[in-house]
Amino acid sequence: MPELSKDTTLCISLSGRPSNIGTRFHNFLYAELGIDFVYKAFTTTDIAAAIGGVRALGIRGCSVSMPFKEAVIPLVDDIEASAAAIGSINTIVNDGGVLTASNTDYEAIASLIESHRLDPAASVLVRGSGGMAKAVVAAFHGAGFTDITVLARNAEAGPALAAAYGARWVADDPAPGAAIIVNVTPLGMDGPDADTLAFSPEHIDAADTVFDVVAFPAETPLIRAARVAGTGVITGAEVIALQAAGQFARYTGVTPTADQVRRASEHSRV
Amino acid sequence: MPELSKDTTLCISLSGRPSNIGTRFHNFLYAELGIDFVYKAFTTTDIAAAIGGVRALGIRGCSVSMPFKEAVIPLVDDIEASAAAIGSINTIVNDGGVLTASNTDYEAIASLIESHRLDPAASVLVRGSGGMAKAVVAAFHGAGFTDITVLARNAEAGPALAAAYGARWVADDPAPGAAIIVNVTPLGMDGPDADTLAFSPEHIDAADTVFDVVAFPAETPLIRAARVAGTGVITGAEVIALQAAGQFARYTGVTPTADQVRRASEHSRV
Repeated sequence: MPELSKDTTLCISLSGRPSNIGTRFHNFLYAELGIDFVYKAFTTTDIAAAIGGVRALGIRGCSVSMPFKEAVIPLVDDIEASAAAIGSINTIVNDGGVLTASNTDYEAIASLIESHRLDPAASVLVRGSGGMAKAVVAAFHGAGFTDITVLARNAEAGPALAAAYGARWVADDPAPGAAIIVNVTPLGMDGPDADTLAFSPEHIDAADTVFDVVAFPAETPLIRAARVAGTGVITGAEVIALQAAGQFARYTGVTPTADQVRRASEHSRV
Repeated sequence: MPELSKDTTLCISLSGRPSNIGTRFHNFLYAELGIDFVYKAFTTTDIAAAIGGVRALGIRGCSVSMPFKEAVIPLVDDIEASAAAIGSINTIVNDGGVLTASNTDYEAIASLIESHRLDPAASVLVRGSGGMAKAVVAAFHGAGFTDITVLARNAEAGPALAAAYGARWVADDPAPGAAIIVNVTPLGMDGPDADTLAFSPEHIDAADTVFDVVAFPAETPLIRAARVAGTGVITGAEVIALQAAGQFARYTGVTPTADQVRRASEHSRV
C-alpha cells in the first residue's frame, strides 16, 4: 500500500460482524488505480454516533451491512429513490457533510438478473425477509418478474415484503417447482449454519437457476449441490463484488473495469 | 505500508490545520515495529460529533491540536492529573469506549527541560497564553523554576496563566535579560507569520537558551537567529517528536527507542 498522508480520503464500512472482503477489495483497487484513498471495516454499538462521526470526520463513504441497513435511514440527509423504495441502505456518500444513501445490493442483483439472462416469465422462490431480501425481491419485480414467492418464517416481515411487490408469502417450504430459487438467509454462511442446505435437494433438482446471496463462503452447501446437479448458479461472491464496485464508483468517481473488479474480488477473498 | 485488514487499529488526529507530521511519524513506526495500526490526520467543524465518532467507531487513539485542546475536556471520561491541572488535552486513548485524556506536550517539554539541563534558577520568558503555553509554563513550574514571566497580549488568558503558576504577566515586551526565552505563538510558523521573529535580537543576545515550540518549520527565524548568535536552542521538532512518541506508547503499549523516534521524526518532516 502507498503511504498515507493527511489528504488521504478515508472510506469505512459498518456492520455487526465485519469481514475482510470490503477492506481488501477497495484497498486493492485504490492501489491498482493510484487513488489516494484508504478503506477500513468497523463495527459499532452506537450507530447514530458512528454516522455522526462519519459526518464530523469527513469520512467520504460508508458501506452499511447487517444489522444497520434500516437503522441508518433516519441518520442520512438524502436517499436515492431505489433505496427509499426498498427501505434498506447499504451505501452512504458524504459530500461535504451532506449524506446521500443508496442501495448497491439492489443494483448488483438487477445487473446479475440481466447478465445471467434470467427469464421474467420464470417462477422465483426467495427465502428470507430481511434488508437484503427486500433488495432481491425488488430487483426481480423491477426486472418484470411476476411469479414471486417469499418464503419466510417471520410472520410480520414476510407478508409485508410479499405485499410490497405483489408476491405470495409462505411460512413453510412449498412444493418444489420454482425455476429460480434464491437464498437470502444466513443458511450456509460461515458460522453456526455453515453446513445447512438452504433448499431441499428436490427444490434444487427442480430449479434452472440457484442463486445464493451468501458471500462467505461463496461455495455454500447450496451452491455446491447445485453445481453437482448441473443447475445454473449465481453466487454471493458475484453480488458482493458488483455491489462493492458500485460503492467504489460512488466514493471515488472512478468506475473500475470488469477485469479490475474480478481481480479485486479474487484478492478480497484470500 | 502493509495491507490493512478489518482488525487493523485506527488512530487519528483532530486539528484545525492538519499537517502531515503525525500521519508520517506514526505510520513509519507502525511499519518499523510491525504493529497492525494505521494513522490519519483529520479536521472537523463539529468536535463533539467527532469525539462521539472516535468512541462509536472504536478509534484507539486521537491526538488533539489547536483549536480543540480545551474543547474536548467535557467530551472525555477521565483526565490524567497533569493534563487536568493544565486544562489542556492533546491525547485521548479509547479503552473499549472509555476515553482517557492526557497531555504529552507537557511531558515532552518537561523531558526537554531535563535533557537540556536547564537551570531552575534561570529566568524564563514565555510568549503566549494558549493551550500549549499552559503546558510550557506548567512544565517549567513543575521543574522548579520560580522566575517565570508570561508575555501575552491577551489580557484574560495572560494574567490567568501567570497567576496559576506564580508567574508575572506582561502585555508588552519587557527589557531583554531573560536567560531562557520561549516562543509559544504562531510567530515564525509557516503561514502569514512565517517571517516574523518571535523575540527581538536583543532578547536573543541576552539569552542562554532559545526555545521555539513552533514545529513547522523547525528552523524558524527565531531558531535561525539563535544559531547565528551561538545561543543554545530547543526546537519545536524536538517537542513534536517527543510528544508523538508519548502518544505512540499510550496508543500501542510499545515504547519506541530514541533512535526509532529520531528516524520517525526525520521521516515525518519530509
